[in-house]
Amino acid sequence: MADKPPRRPRAETPKGFRDYFGAEVTERKAMLDAIAGVYHRYGFDPLETSAVETVEALGKFLPDVDRPNEGVFAWQDEDQDWLALRYDLTAPLARVAAQYRNDLPSPYRRYAMGPVWRNEKPGPGRFRQFYQCDADTVGSASVAADAEICAMLADALETVGIPRGDYVVKVNNRKVLNGVMEVAGLAGEDKHAERGIVLRAIDKIDRLGPEGVRALLGEGRKDESGDFTKGASLSAEQAEVVMGFTTARRDTGPETLARLRELVGGSAVGAEGVAELEAIAALLAAQGYGPERIVIDPGVVRGLGYYTGPVFEAELTFQITDEKGRPRNFGSVAGGGRYDGLVRRFTGQDVPATGVSIGVDRLLAALRAKGRVAGSSEGPVVVTVMDRDRMADYMVMVGELRQAGIRAEAYLGNPKNFGNQLKYADKRGAPVAVIQGGDEAVRGTVVLKDLVLGAKIAASATLEEWKDRPAQLEVPRGELVTAVKRMLGA
Amino acid sequence: MADKPPRRPRAETPKGFRDYFGAEVTERKAMLDAIAGVYHRYGFDPLETSAVETVEALGKFLPDVDRPNEGVFAWQDEDQDWLALRYDLTAPLARVAAQYRNDLPSPYRRYAMGPVWRNEKPGPGRFRQFYQCDADTVGSASVAADAEICAMLADALETVGIPRGDYVVKVNNRKVLNGVMEVAGLAGEDKHAERGIVLRAIDKIDRLGPEGVRALLGEGRKDESGDFTKGASLSAEQAEVVMGFTTARRDTGPETLARLRELVGGSAVGAEGVAELEAIAALLAAQGYGPERIVIDPGVVRGLGYYTGPVFEAELTFQITDEKGRPRNFGSVAGGGRYDGLVRRFTGQDVPATGVSIGVDRLLAALRAKGRVAGSSEGPVVVTVMDRDRMADYMVMVGELRQAGIRAEAYLGNPKNFGNQLKYADKRGAPVAVIQGGDEAVRGTVVLKDLVLGAKIAASATLEEWKDRPAQLEVPRGELVTAVKRMLGA
Repeated sequence: MADKPPRRPRAETPKGFRDYFGAEVTERKAMLDAIAGVYHRYGFDPLETSAVETVEALGKFLPDVDRPNEGVFAWQDEDQDWLALRYDLTAPLARVAAQYRNDLPSPYRRYAMGPVWRNEKPGPGRFRQFYQCDADTVGSASVAADAEICAMLADALETVGIPRGDYVVKVNNRKVLNGVMEVAGLAGEDKHAERGIVLRAIDKIDRLGPEGVRALLGEGRKDESGDFTKGASLSAEQAEVVMGFTTARRDTGPETLARLRELVGGSAVGAEGVAELEAIAALLAAQGYGPERIVIDPGVVRGLGYYTGPVFEAELTFQITDEKGRPRNFGSVAGGGRYDGLVRRFTGQDVPATGVSIGVDRLLAALRAKGRVAGSSEGPVVVTVMDRDRMADYMVMVGELRQAGIRAEAYLGNPKNFGNQLKYADKRGAPVAVIQGGDEAVRGTVVLKDLVLGAKIAASATLEEWKDRPAQLEVPRGELVTAVKRMLGA
Repeated sequence: MADKPPRRPRAETPKGFRDYFGAEVTERKAMLDAIAGVYHRYGFDPLETSAVETVEALGKFLPDVDRPNEGVFAWQDEDQDWLALRYDLTAPLARVAAQYRNDLPSPYRRYAMGPVWRNEKPGPGRFRQFYQCDADTVGSASVAADAEICAMLADALETVGIPRGDYVVKVNNRKVLNGVMEVAGLAGEDKHAERGIVLRAIDKIDRLGPEGVRALLGEGRKDESGDFTKGASLSAEQAEVVMGFTTARRDTGPETLARLRELVGGSAVGAEGVAELEAIAALLAAQGYGPERIVIDPGVVRGLGYYTGPVFEAELTFQITDEKGRPRNFGSVAGGGRYDGLVRRFTGQDVPATGVSIGVDRLLAALRAKGRVAGSSEGPVVVTVMDRDRMADYMVMVGELRQAGIRAEAYLGNPKNFGNQLKYADKRGAPVAVIQGGDEAVRGTVVLKDLVLGAKIAASATLEEWKDRPAQLEVPRGELVTAVKRMLGA
């Protein structure tokens, strides 16, 4: 009796993960390289931490539960320590800033780019591994550091191909929000939960609109699916104060600042926040970053709990067509802010820090929507194989082309069916196919097929406009490189 | 009674992992970019798979044990599926080749670079996360594909800065070894274990020498620590045949091939292997890759079990000084070969494939040893802060420098102690410090300190040679950019 053969493994990317091919890789790389160039020019140094951290150092997730993998991919190593994949680039930076605090320059200015992992339910366009691209200044309490991050973010967006006018960097300050909370009577330690609900409600104003936010400030809100989100149970007066904050933006920066000063009234922290925003606005204005690039907008609060001062968000202002054909705003592609408490977890000492994270995939999608991606790679010149006994001749042709800097390869599949070779060249996006059969070899020539032109002729209704340009050309073998160059240049 | 404060988390990289700072990141990136350029020119397309694979797809580690994490970092997801971090870039390629077999061009030529993870005992210089940089051709049975990989490997090494003569690519063929095994009477299915021991023994010849290998072919070998490794228990005659193979290299390729043909005698697979080596040598010779770059060397077998045909290894031939001051050969920096069975696991069909993996960290260490690393980054021009109320003025200077393409930043720490600012500039490797106190502001000037020259003067015994070049210079504010450029260019 024969054994049942073992089941074959499934060739599948794990759920929520994906593969990136060809231009998807080079386009992202070109964008990251351009951003790294800006970060470098601003004096930031690269840092690459490992993908793996101890759960203890990541901090958000405590090892006192049975399996601390809520939100992270975690496992126990042979010493029973819990390890996990990093979920962002900020937590590893806080660990590095503490670990090397005696060796790093202070302030420490670093940038980092790389994948992060989230153990979350995957959905359309939502993956469990994605890229982030951060820059942070650790050890500077000066708002000049925050202003610089905003200016750098604007420069980075323009450098990758988002023209001025198509984006805006919005700046706000958590201290102003805290001042407003004080005025609304939400300052006490016992009001922590309410403040959290208020913060998250304001953060959703773009999606829910003012009425949705108002509901969340009050008793709560039922969404389209019927799920009920409990609100902060503010009184009508309290809710009015908070709503006044979200709509405090005026036509000009000075007017917005004046309105905010009114709102925070006698709150010391609120006044401090407004003064910081004023200082940031003055620094940016001095460097020529006007409101067409960077604006004060109290509508921006950023959802993360750890921010302690200025917060910023870069929004693309042009519209795209969504999957249902409706125009919609592209929205946020980057965000950040000041977080003065993250290093304290390790050292007990406050270390002021501020930074930004660019959402690489969203920014790349925006550039694609604008037709502005760089780095997409041209296909190779394909040298076809008419006679497999003359493989060395074909490889020599390929070698000459490569020596001349031309991307080239010989067809390395089974050469029997010549049609397959041309199909392959087509699939690779080859601009030129090189052919040398026995006759050409005897004559000492090669045939070049201009596949770009060939495709145009095939797509065109009339051959008239192409008649002067041959899509196929026989040239002496010695002129291979020159003739291919000419064909590629045309 | 006060609560005991919770223990602070340790700020530590997990055991066996490390962080990369500044030039360590940019130097590796410059090297990988250069290699990618060669791979691209050869017609290979980038592929980036996710770090996470199903354990089932990785294949080496079966999910039938309680915790299948021998050698890999693995965990169970919420659906009870085992996931793991990839341990190389070949297993994910095999998965991709199977998963997308109807969509990918065939042959599929791809390159991949990125970290891989090994759950192994860390040691000095042995990390649990490291980079690999692979190129493979999937779907070509032609030895032209193998020859091309060897040529590309030579080109890549020269492109990153290993001069011709300082490396050699060694080529061998597993089929020849199999032929030799046949001659030695080790061909049968029941001799699988012995063949494995023989393979691993030959792979260690550089480290153990001929006598060590001979011991492993016989009863076994006790190493310096006293541990005993069981041998293949070959007879003296059998061992002679195998040893003859490892020492079959002659002065020229044709002589080596002739010797190999003798050794494999009447073995069909052995003769096929020799013919393949002959074809590879002919292809490479036609393209001008002579024995100063690529040689046939039967001493190379590569340890991995999955190779089925040609195998290759790039060795650096220059000596370095080890940690004990003794000269030693640098050794292998890349290896690969043909593996025709990896995709079959998924599809049941053999898919011929061949490829190479460059050991990124070893190659980078070699380049550093040769003083040939590119990409190390210069420090930023540091604009110091003499008067914190004039922060906007300093930021404007920084902005002008950046606009001119000069890496620059203002000092963003506490400006009270000016000495700290200069220490910071020193730690950052700043070439120039810009200073504008109240007097200079009134005069409309800035002072530039040439820190590179200053360091030279400080290190020099006599000031004589520097007396004509001022290390400090006061220039009109309007000439800031021009003067800094001049100082940087000097």
